[in-house]
Amino acid sequence: MNSAARRRMASLSELAGLVADGAATTRSAIVGATGLSRAAIAQRVDLLIERGLLVETEPAATDRGRPPLALDLSDARIVVAGCDLGATHSRLAVATLSGRVLAERERAIDINAGPDAVLAGVRTDLEELLAAAGRPADHLRAVGIGVPGPVEFASGTVVRPPIMAGWDGCRIPAYFEGRYAAPVLVDNDVNAMALGEYTHRQASRHLLYVKVGTGIGCGIVSDGVLHRGASGAAGDIGHIQLPGHEDVLCHCGNTGCVEAVASGAAIAAALRAQGADAARAADVVRLVSAGHAAARRHVRLAGQRIGEVLASLVSFHNPDTIVIGGILAKLHEDLLADVRAVIYRRALPLATRSLAIETSVLGERAGMLGAVRLAARHLLSAEGMAGIIGDV
Amino acid sequence: MNSAARRRMASLSELAGLVADGAATTRSAIVGATGLSRAAIAQRVDLLIERGLLVETEPAATDRGRPPLALDLSDARIVVAGCDLGATHSRLAVATLSGRVLAERERAIDINAGPDAVLAGVRTDLEELLAAAGRPADHLRAVGIGVPGPVEFASGTVVRPPIMAGWDGCRIPAYFEGRYAAPVLVDNDVNAMALGEYTHRQASRHLLYVKVGTGIGCGIVSDGVLHRGASGAAGDIGHIQLPGHEDVLCHCGNTGCVEAVASGAAIAAALRAQGADAARAADVVRLVSAGHAAARRHVRLAGQRIGEVLASLVSFHNPDTIVIGGILAKLHEDLLADVRAVIYRRALPLATRSLAIETSVLGERAGMLGAVRLAARHLLSAEGMAGIIGDV
Repeated sequence: MNSAARRRMASLSELAGLVADGAATTRSAIVGATGLSRAAIAQRVDLLIERGLLVETEPAATDRGRPPLALDLSDARIVVAGCDLGATHSRLAVATLSGRVLAERERAIDINAGPDAVLAGVRTDLEELLAAAGRPADHLRAVGIGVPGPVEFASGTVVRPPIMAGWDGCRIPAYFEGRYAAPVLVDNDVNAMALGEYTHRQASRHLLYVKVGTGIGCGIVSDGVLHRGASGAAGDIGHIQLPGHEDVLCHCGNTGCVEAVASGAAIAAALRAQGADAARAADVVRLVSAGHAAARRHVRLAGQRIGEVLASLVSFHNPDTIVIGGILAKLHEDLLADVRAVIYRRALPLATRSLAIETSVLGERAGMLGAVRLAARHLLSAEGMAGIIGDV
Repeated sequence: MNSAARRRMASLSELAGLVADGAATTRSAIVGATGLSRAAIAQRVDLLIERGLLVETEPAATDRGRPPLALDLSDARIVVAGCDLGATHSRLAVATLSGRVLAERERAIDINAGPDAVLAGVRTDLEELLAAAGRPADHLRAVGIGVPGPVEFASGTVVRPPIMAGWDGCRIPAYFEGRYAAPVLVDNDVNAMALGEYTHRQASRHLLYVKVGTGIGCGIVSDGVLHRGASGAAGDIGHIQLPGHEDVLCHCGNTGCVEAVASGAAIAAALRAQGADAARAADVVRLVSAGHAAARRHVRLAGQRIGEVLASLVSFHNPDTIVIGGILAKLHEDLLADVRAVIYRRALPLATRSLAIETSVLGERAGMLGAVRLAARHLLSAEGMAGIIGDV
């Protein structure tokens, strides 16, 4: 793309973004918001309508006369897909550009079966969901995928994942090329979850999504934007060291990491050592739900330790919202109470004055809906726009 | 400002920003970058020239003919000021919009003398520096001030400062109103220092500025933007709890805060307890420089403890640059070595792969130059533009 084309795509992207955010939904409003001439706006709006990105409809007439034609994102010819891959599940949705889910499916997987097996399943699901939604393959114009491991976002490559056997160096977009005219955006699952929760909370600008499952991780939204950091590693809080646990060895090779002390896997291990039937994080949830006192005690202690780490991060980042997700968030009556207590006691009053600490509003669908958002917003970016518009 | 005027100011701000960043410095380049018509650009550029914000000059002719007229920020009729207030110093500069210092001055103050006394000194300095730079008062169009305490940025009000006796609730801009046609932007001193260091490092996008002086604080730049957080408290890391120091009481009422263990004040107190002549942070620097072994040992231990806190923040935020500033950074051979060692040992390899941990390039001028930047960038914002352009 030469620089003139790039500027043109940026201008189209800005225009589509105004409509998507509801900031300007008539041609006149867009003229006002952009400073471009009515003729220039007409030319651009017409192009976006012609390419199926926007639709212009006549609102019902009112007593005060005919309102102007209203612009909105179109769902007639463009859909996106969002996929959340976990250690043992794949959740996939086909959705409109505005994020409305048309069809979705969950299936059990073993992520350690490797990319060939897992992504073949995703491709099959994707075809079936497109069919279920009554959409031909060429309607699919972007795919977002969240995976349970570190990702080099620019290329969609999995980088040295602690779980995900067989995925190291896998460039996930390659598995979809040729089949769909759709760029594939790949991100860490926790980033996708943070984006999903952020999108569904109007009042939040600075949000931390903390996943407490087999491991512990964090997605960061700063002033409305996903913060990936200098090398895409931001939010990897599982290996922050806790006070007073220098004797606990972590799989990372260090000692005292919060993940080695307070994750679902760590609690299950502690319960096993006490003779309980607990192989993994889900067993912790089962035991607590069944009233197992020691399991409940371990979850409360884990809440305190996670709270200690989060108290430091609240003082540093000063978020307005912390969302606790992951399988252990199902135990929110036990976990959340202690997380909250420690944060409010330890973090600075100014930083906690209007801080909300909550469980997920989207639950297990957070990652999938975040991946949908990732895909939809990419399409509306200057780069995504170039894919839709081509060299016109 | 009505919405049409606001959009107009946003458009003028965008245009001035393109010139300020060097992204588009001719009328043609601005037409290309904005998508606006040549006539619309001409009208806007002429207005900005007329109001003294831009200047258009003829570059020297070359063999290949006459190059187009080049736009730049003008320093003929607009200057800004930047002030760094510390516990015991005031540093003030008068500078051009592009950040070139025309005149500067440092004076000793006692911040606890209160706002009337301290800000009268700043006003006197400001008048004398304007005179020294040969500028009338009406050339001054924005003032940035960094103060050693929490600030509500929107109003410029000091909020419950731990030091700064007599300043609680003080709205600093009120001390300059009526005298200058210049908005006054007030921020925490560490935020100003972070902005100053960031502005002078081309390669950095995500920077943490850590001030180690009497206290310990941090300024955060995320993707080129100062991150103030939900209530302006971001970066207040002095009260993060350290492992293994639960017996140390902090002035905040909690125990084990890094500031209570590893700040200049804490080291001075520990040395006093051992019989050394150390009243405050500056004495620690004096003793170490004179070869005092116990003082040096304390500084190295402080470096390790600060490193422990920063290791967690590196895993969370994944910066590309950490700048260690404040008076104890003068002892960088001792302090920095231990900070680095702990961060590289504790933080995740992916997060430290290309992390630079350095001392300040601006030294004691970082806060003042950051305050200059704060003022200059405000003038180029839509809000600042409205002050320059008025209701035209």
